Amino acid sequence: MSVTLVLGGARSGKSGYAERLADASGKEIVYVATSRAGDAEMAARIAHHRERRPAGWRTVEEELALAAVLRTECAPGRLVLVDCLTLWLSNLMFCDGREWPDVGEVTLPERFHSEHAALLDLLEGGVEGDLVFVSNEVGMGIVPWGAVSRCFADEAGRLNQTVAARADRAVFVAAGLPLVLKGSTC
Amino acid sequence: MSVTLVLGGARSGKSGYAERLADASGKEIVYVATSRAGDAEMAARIAHHRERRPAGWRTVEEELALAAVLRTECAPGRLVLVDCLTLWLSNLMFCDGREWPDVGEVTLPERFHSEHAALLDLLEGGVEGDLVFVSNEVGMGIVPWGAVSRCFADEAGRLNQTVAARADRAVFVAAGLPLVLKGSTC
Amino acid sequence: MSVTLVLGGARSGKSGYAERLADASGKEIVYVATSRAGDAEMAARIAHHRERRPAGWRTVEEELALAAVLRTECAPGRLVLVDCLTLWLSNLMFCDGREWPDVGEVTLPERFHSEHAALLDLLEGGVEGDLVFVSNEVGMGIVPWGAVSRCFADEAGRLNQTVAARADRAVFVAAGLPLVLKGSTC
Repeated sequence: MSVTLVLGGARSGKSGYAERLADASGKEIVYVATSRAGDAEMAARIAHHRERRPAGWRTVEEELALAAVLRTECAPGRLVLVDCLTLWLSNLMFCDGREWPDVGEVTLPERFHSEHAALLDLLEGGVEGDLVFVSNEVGMGIVPWGAVSRCFADEAGRLNQTVAARADRAVFVAAGLPLVLKGSTC
Repeated sequence: MSVTLVLGGARSGKSGYAERLADASGKEIVYVATSRAGDAEMAARIAHHRERRPAGWRTVEEELALAAVLRTECAPGRLVLVDCLTLWLSNLMFCDGREWPDVGEVTLPERFHSEHAALLDLLEGGVEGDLVFVSNEVGMGIVPWGAVSRCFADEAGRLNQTVAARADRAVFVAAGLPLVLKGSTC
Repeated sequence: MSVTLVLGGARSGKSGYAERLADASGKEIVYVATSRAGDAEMAARIAHHRERRPAGWRTVEEELALAAVLRTECAPGRLVLVDCLTLWLSNLMFCDGREWPDVGEVTLPERFHSEHAALLDLLEGGVEGDLVFVSNEVGMGIVPWGAVSRCFADEAGRLNQTVAARADRAVFVAAGLPLVLKGSTC
């Protein structure tokens, strides 16, 4: 198994970079979309991503049970592209419809922890084929107001570190161009 | 023509880096300022930038018609430094005095599109001399609240990708120091 | 003296990276903590950092008089790790309990300026042993609303540039992995 993390800001070109990487692999591609079309704006963003993808790619939509999908889909000769970890994280934070406090301590949903543990298990155990994760860098602005935003920034950063530590390659994308954090140039 | 993109966060030292690059070129320098002194704070920021520039540089102020200025000013043996693309983008977004909604879809001013098309035409066609663009990375924090902020982050990221794809060199500046995204060290 | 700047976003792994760097030096380590446990959330963050530190390290807590502490603590054969410059900056901005305006010009406390000057003096003069600064990148998101946030982003960026210019090595950390801005790989 080869695991790659493609990390970048909003509209950094990280998805496009990961898609070109997938395309250049010459392998069968499974695209795992973690977004949900909760409103018109998000639906437009999803449509924008979908139009760009080659027709031959198979798309699997999964908001929460990422590790389960990867266990099913990862296979020799295949590249699974997950876009993106940050939306998956956001889905998990809000999956039980809880109200978030503006201040004070935050308790994450049980499913948040179980799904994280499942992903970590998967990465530790190793899977067949290639796996590419797209993820957002969200911690390089002013620390945001509101406990939920800070919690999200913390968890997103922690997840990026966790995946990067287990990845064979990691790149930081800015303006559509990669800086290699780990491994060789993709 | 040689085109360079200098990308960085707020107070990353990107302007200073671009200015040293221009200074080291030994060429005649035209400095294109895209900011407008809308309030006292912005006026102070502009004055701060102006004081640092060598006396021999010629300054052209243009908030909107960037491509037209570049068509006039770019010439063999000359380096044109544009500081910065992000303010130009912001000027275009707000150029017709519209009210922006907090949620929902955003429609950009017609001039936004026509000026973008003109800049793209220019870069595709090629101009004489050297051209250095300074631009902000704004997408690495928490996705901001408000449709206008998200639209701005999207458009700024898209513009950075567009220019970087057509640039000969691109650098990402942090703490005043460059990471090379494309081309050789400046 | 060897000075290193470790720069990164929130939860980028910058502290962990700096701590591994310190640990690998084989030197006596003095850890200078600049945070103050103002509320429960910050107390939890401090505890999180403290648990990770090796038992043999000596901790000095100092919110404001950083240069004075460094003059005392820096010594041959010793590595002093400062975590972090950004909290120190924040402490200085708010050290006199002033009210900050939402708009308009901002005047910084006198102590802000005197402590900055003292740190600059120290770095210019040189000290014995090794010195590692951890600092936040906060300028790569949307420019925040509110004069105090913009002032903070400006000063944080300026401080990073100032320290980086005088450092022997500087790294930019993302997802726990370093990109070398200056000097050799740490």
